[in-house]
Amino acid sequence: MEGIGAGSIIRRNKAGRHECVTDEVAIEEPLEIRIRGRVVATTMRTPGHDEELAAGFLLSEAIIKTRADLRTISATKDNVIDVDLASTVEFSPAPSERFGTITSSCGLCGKASIDFIRQRFPLIDFTTDPTRIAETILLQLPDRLQTAQGNFARTGGIHAAGIFDVDGNPLVVREDIGRHNAVDKAIGRAFLDRLLPLNRHVLVVSGRSSFEIVQKALAAGIPIVAAVSAPSSLAINFARECGQTLIGFLRPPTFNVYSHIERLIL
Amino acid sequence: MEGIGAGSIIRRNKAGRHECVTDEVAIEEPLEIRIRGRVVATTMRTPGHDEELAAGFLLSEAIIKTRADLRTISATKDNVIDVDLASTVEFSPAPSERFGTITSSCGLCGKASIDFIRQRFPLIDFTTDPTRIAETILLQLPDRLQTAQGNFARTGGIHAAGIFDVDGNPLVVREDIGRHNAVDKAIGRAFLDRLLPLNRHVLVVSGRSSFEIVQKALAAGIPIVAAVSAPSSLAINFARECGQTLIGFLRPPTFNVYSHIERLIL
Repeated sequence: MEGIGAGSIIRRNKAGRHECVTDEVAIEEPLEIRIRGRVVATTMRTPGHDEELAAGFLLSEAIIKTRADLRTISATKDNVIDVDLASTVEFSPAPSERFGTITSSCGLCGKASIDFIRQRFPLIDFTTDPTRIAETILLQLPDRLQTAQGNFARTGGIHAAGIFDVDGNPLVVREDIGRHNAVDKAIGRAFLDRLLPLNRHVLVVSGRSSFEIVQKALAAGIPIVAAVSAPSSLAINFARECGQTLIGFLRPPTFNVYSHIERLIL
Repeated sequence: MEGIGAGSIIRRNKAGRHECVTDEVAIEEPLEIRIRGRVVATTMRTPGHDEELAAGFLLSEAIIKTRADLRTISATKDNVIDVDLASTVEFSPAPSERFGTITSSCGLCGKASIDFIRQRFPLIDFTTDPTRIAETILLQLPDRLQTAQGNFARTGGIHAAGIFDVDGNPLVVREDIGRHNAVDKAIGRAFLDRLLPLNRHVLVVSGRSSFEIVQKALAAGIPIVAAVSAPSSLAINFARECGQTLIGFLRPPTFNVYSHIERLIL
């Protein structure tokens, strides 16, 4: 299966004996993303769905905003994705510009960072987006995510990200050794299919929610983010200021709500 | 406590009722690392031990190799670390050079990446480094790591990295919202204390082991890496080629050995 490799290892079992077994591990390889021939980012990822990963990354960085901004996106050789932008899209990074959502230009406290990001994406306003999700649906999402992906359970080393509608139907589920990559692949697929903004949807992640996870959801217009593990302080502050509902420790029958509880039907 | 913040949330309890509680979350803020006034990296990290983080990062990037390479390293303002290098250290990154251990110059398959990294650090040769660790000691390390750190258990969102000697005594234990940062802080502390190479030591991490984790251990001369969760394919290949012992799923009484089992006293 794509993304999984096998190799012999020595395993100590519970009785204290050692046995030589074949194990499956998650594949990790670098991917280089180039725009108009120029390398703009390199990420360690699990191979597969590389166009989606690149599209989701460029969307998160606000380099592309609509499907029309993207002229071509293709794997020209192993572990390289080449992107061409529409001629209307200005892209001339300063030589010293580094990618990654936080740069020196955004200031370096959480508040300044949030303000900087907020300028790049439309906020989600509950008065114009009355999207709600029933608690009963929310509580089913971890199971549905796990059903849609099999690798994590097998290798223990793969993160999953899934986009579901508010009725609990999966739109896309992707896996990767990196949490951010799994989210980029999921939102990238939806972007390539011209489905944005996903303002009737929920992003579910199998691990923790950092600032970047919540920001990627915002880039795709997703109003609700639910994570199986803990959020960071900046993820919470970001969600509060950007109008997103942030759920953490989604482990049925319990969960925590960190922001904008008005979207939950309790 | 440093690195932990508090905030009110809504919690759903097991009986299905909702209550407003105060929760602790891991702090996430950006840190900018500057060399001679120039920004070379920005990372999202948990505040605290920032000099160690910067030192460990620069060591991992092979920008500094010995303590004498570092003239000064200090926090000049919030979330900024300024570094000055000894005049003997050449540092003039090309304008387009990006940091992060994988760059376009290293080729883009796993094998080429490993070859590139291998040129930057001395490999660990078992014939000249007959370091061994008893299985009984190894099995105690997850407990000892957890004892030395308290945040992870409280917030569920903090990773831990600890360096132990082969008798199981802790040298340094650090926590961070990012796995790589926790390792950078731990090896950075040892570097600042002029304790490298740590060739009688084990690096223990609370989560998974990626390629970068194993590479950071190599940069500090650590021959044994043990992780509570899964390794990636590239982490395994890297450890095999660089002479490091890689342990995964270290969950007493069981564990897996992925490379160089000769360092284990079974």
